[in-house]
Amino acid sequence: MTTVNKAEIPDIVVSRLPRYLRVLKNLRETKKTTNSTELGKLLGYSSAQVRKDFSQFGEFGKQGTGYNIDYLINQFQQILQVNQTWDIVLIGVGNLGRAILNYRGFEKHGFFIRGAFDDDPHIIGEKIGNKVVRDIAEVGDFIKEFDIKIAMIATPASEAQSVAEMLVANNIKAILTYASTILNLPPEIRVEYSDPIISLQHISYYL
Amino acid sequence: MTTVNKAEIPDIVVSRLPRYLRVLKNLRETKKTTNSTELGKLLGYSSAQVRKDFSQFGEFGKQGTGYNIDYLINQFQQILQVNQTWDIVLIGVGNLGRAILNYRGFEKHGFFIRGAFDDDPHIIGEKIGNKVVRDIAEVGDFIKEFDIKIAMIATPASEAQSVAEMLVANNIKAILTYASTILNLPPEIRVEYSDPIISLQHISYYL
Repeated sequence: MTTVNKAEIPDIVVSRLPRYLRVLKNLRETKKTTNSTELGKLLGYSSAQVRKDFSQFGEFGKQGTGYNIDYLINQFQQILQVNQTWDIVLIGVGNLGRAILNYRGFEKHGFFIRGAFDDDPHIIGEKIGNKVVRDIAEVGDFIKEFDIKIAMIATPASEAQSVAEMLVANNIKAILTYASTILNLPPEIRVEYSDPIISLQHISYYL
Repeated sequence: MTTVNKAEIPDIVVSRLPRYLRVLKNLRETKKTTNSTELGKLLGYSSAQVRKDFSQFGEFGKQGTGYNIDYLINQFQQILQVNQTWDIVLIGVGNLGRAILNYRGFEKHGFFIRGAFDDDPHIIGEKIGNKVVRDIAEVGDFIKEFDIKIAMIATPASEAQSVAEMLVANNIKAILTYASTILNLPPEIRVEYSDPIISLQHISYYL
């Protein structure tokens, strides 16, 4: 693979890589090669879009022979830096936080929720899944001790901004937030929103 | 507002409208006008990006005087078709489905979960929040009776594709899925993914 200058890759292309990876892992169970037409069909993109996306990262296959699935998976995992494990802190252990702690899908993909934190004395100390909920006051030390870069926020919307600022002050670099509010953070902090209202308002445009 | 040809607006621009709406509603609480610099700063977009996005939908303000916040909110709600209420069916009442049923944020934004469905006899009939879980076998009639166009899928990944096909056969037009799998559906069906693995793989690229 040619060296990729990450700053030059549009984020919209980056956002599609995990989807390619998902589909490629499914395909791997039944075959060895694929092509842009098949990938496009499975993801709802045009084959031209698939080829253009891939060309951002170098040459992944020869004209006419298709792509080797294992090779693509390996390359995309390297590019996305998911050929390693990541530790995560979860802030907020209400209904949603509990569902997140009980979800077994993260570890399969190399993401480990190392600690779950709340500020409610009734919740701190409770055992959920295989985690004991910790006091939010301890999160800074915890992040430092385990060198954690990723946080998930599942607090009420009204608390999300102050929690996010506290996390960033404690060296968190990337946040996946479930709170229904836009976070205003320094541009170098990556924020992904998992907000069902935003998603529903997006699809209702097309109805 | 000038008439908008929806087919001509790139989906990436549409995807930003709910975020503009979110920020505008926050701003409305303290002021009457805003501008592309302020909006861009709050959302992490450049002011040029904001102006370009808005220009896709017509003229929303005069050079130099900024945008009227109430007017923008009203226009964006019309464009997104969220100046009305939408009924939704939820399929899958496990941990995540329960968290969704207990979440009070949907109704505030005009989205109403009219029915929740599962195929597990131990869950059917259970009352969660203010909803009694129904038998998945009844969902087709339910969709017809209430003329429902939107579904949320919170089933295990292995069931999501067959559930989605069944919903589409029963006239569902848009799906928000929480299942960790890519749905392969006709192109006219709108699908939004709320998949924490995809989001985490996206942010890990930048770490």
